[in-house]
Amino acid sequence: MEKDYAGWVKDDETIEDLRFKDLKLIQKKKGFRFGMDAVLLAHFTIVKKGDMVLDLGTGTGIIPVLIAVKTGASLITAVEILPEMAELAMRNAKMNGIDSIGVECIDLKEYKTDQKFDVVTANPPYMNMGGGLVNPQDSKAVSRHEIKCTLEDVIRTASHSLKHLGRFNMVHRPQRLTDIICSMRRHDLEPKQLRFVHPSSDREPSMILIRGLKSGRPMLKVMPPLFVRSYGEYTAEIRDIYNSDSRAENK
Amino acid sequence: MEKDYAGWVKDDETIEDLRFKDLKLIQKKKGFRFGMDAVLLAHFTIVKKGDMVLDLGTGTGIIPVLIAVKTGASLITAVEILPEMAELAMRNAKMNGIDSIGVECIDLKEYKTDQKFDVVTANPPYMNMGGGLVNPQDSKAVSRHEIKCTLEDVIRTASHSLKHLGRFNMVHRPQRLTDIICSMRRHDLEPKQLRFVHPSSDREPSMILIRGLKSGRPMLKVMPPLFVRSYGEYTAEIRDIYNSDSRAENK
Repeated sequence: MEKDYAGWVKDDETIEDLRFKDLKLIQKKKGFRFGMDAVLLAHFTIVKKGDMVLDLGTGTGIIPVLIAVKTGASLITAVEILPEMAELAMRNAKMNGIDSIGVECIDLKEYKTDQKFDVVTANPPYMNMGGGLVNPQDSKAVSRHEIKCTLEDVIRTASHSLKHLGRFNMVHRPQRLTDIICSMRRHDLEPKQLRFVHPSSDREPSMILIRGLKSGRPMLKVMPPLFVRSYGEYTAEIRDIYNSDSRAENK
Repeated sequence: MEKDYAGWVKDDETIEDLRFKDLKLIQKKKGFRFGMDAVLLAHFTIVKKGDMVLDLGTGTGIIPVLIAVKTGASLITAVEILPEMAELAMRNAKMNGIDSIGVECIDLKEYKTDQKFDVVTANPPYMNMGGGLVNPQDSKAVSRHEIKCTLEDVIRTASHSLKHLGRFNMVHRPQRLTDIICSMRRHDLEPKQLRFVHPSSDREPSMILIRGLKSGRPMLKVMPPLFVRSYGEYTAEIRDIYNSDSRAENK
């Protein structure tokens, strides 16, 4: 039985099937489109029953949607600076029947809360602003380039928002690893686990997943590499990640 | 024709065949014994014809010996704090007929030079001093634990000793990556290339190889992983590294 989503989608938007748990995601036709980054980050993030989660720069809200469905999070707060994206993130939560997600339309640099979180997630813009020409009004550019916030801003807000030993989880690019690690330590988010994602076993990594602990003690574990494809096919691990929820349902 | 090395070796020492270019290495029976770390670091280090090279904490002198034979280095200075090891490093150079190596018996923390180097190498002690009991008189302990020098000392001296855009090359453990990267940046040795060495493709890395550039600009390249074994056998890349000199001779 196909549910009718027509009423949820605007003319400048498309709807995607997330391919598990009947989840759907609305995206802007011309905006940033979710990728494997968000799916891998949601999988990498450990959320325990009752945890309070904060997602910084949520965009379409894909990470909160996946975490809400995959974990026992009690409440997920999503912060987004662009009003049209904040509205879209809220709509994506409602359309999927999820009521544990709250969206705040605010600049993450200004985000202050008495509530401290157990978990923070972030899939921030990867590219720092060199001399490149980008349109600061363009939501796609905002999600890719450090126009509205820098890596340092994301890490600072994450640190301020976490409880003692709360977990920060981020997906980013290997080229920025030095910036990431130095900034995390500067803001008392000690890097504890690091995983490189490679297109295949003979290629350099295209993504990193990193977890830091608020006021954790130094000792980094670099995990085995995650390979996306082997001989052109998705690896068993990638297939498991994409199927993890349907498997969980069948238990 | 076997050359007779008997006169070179003392009672508390053994002699190893390095398995290329007829190189031999004397080691202390009870001391730290060279491993794959040194071989991979020597291979990872790029030395151009005429380069001046400095090896910090040289131990048996294996890294200078390998670099002298593999590259066009004009002069390699090896620094070692323990007199018996400095003497051994010099003996290893002479026994192999290498006259481009000079050994200085000095604490690397005190090492000062007007001569700036093109390349610095280091295979320092991996373990920081927690509460563990170690004998500070034991040369094996000195090579494994940060008794005589810390990671920070090694990186500081490397930075002081390098020319502008000179290359620092180090082998270390993944657990210390945060300390390494933050210390390198603090001392103006920008991390530029990083390679993880894994026992096999499904295992976490056991070693890292890192190269930093004195006053380089930020942009780290994480290289494809280096796997030591596949299905129990050495991989083609490891075999190539161990055979690279005999191949070069046949060109």
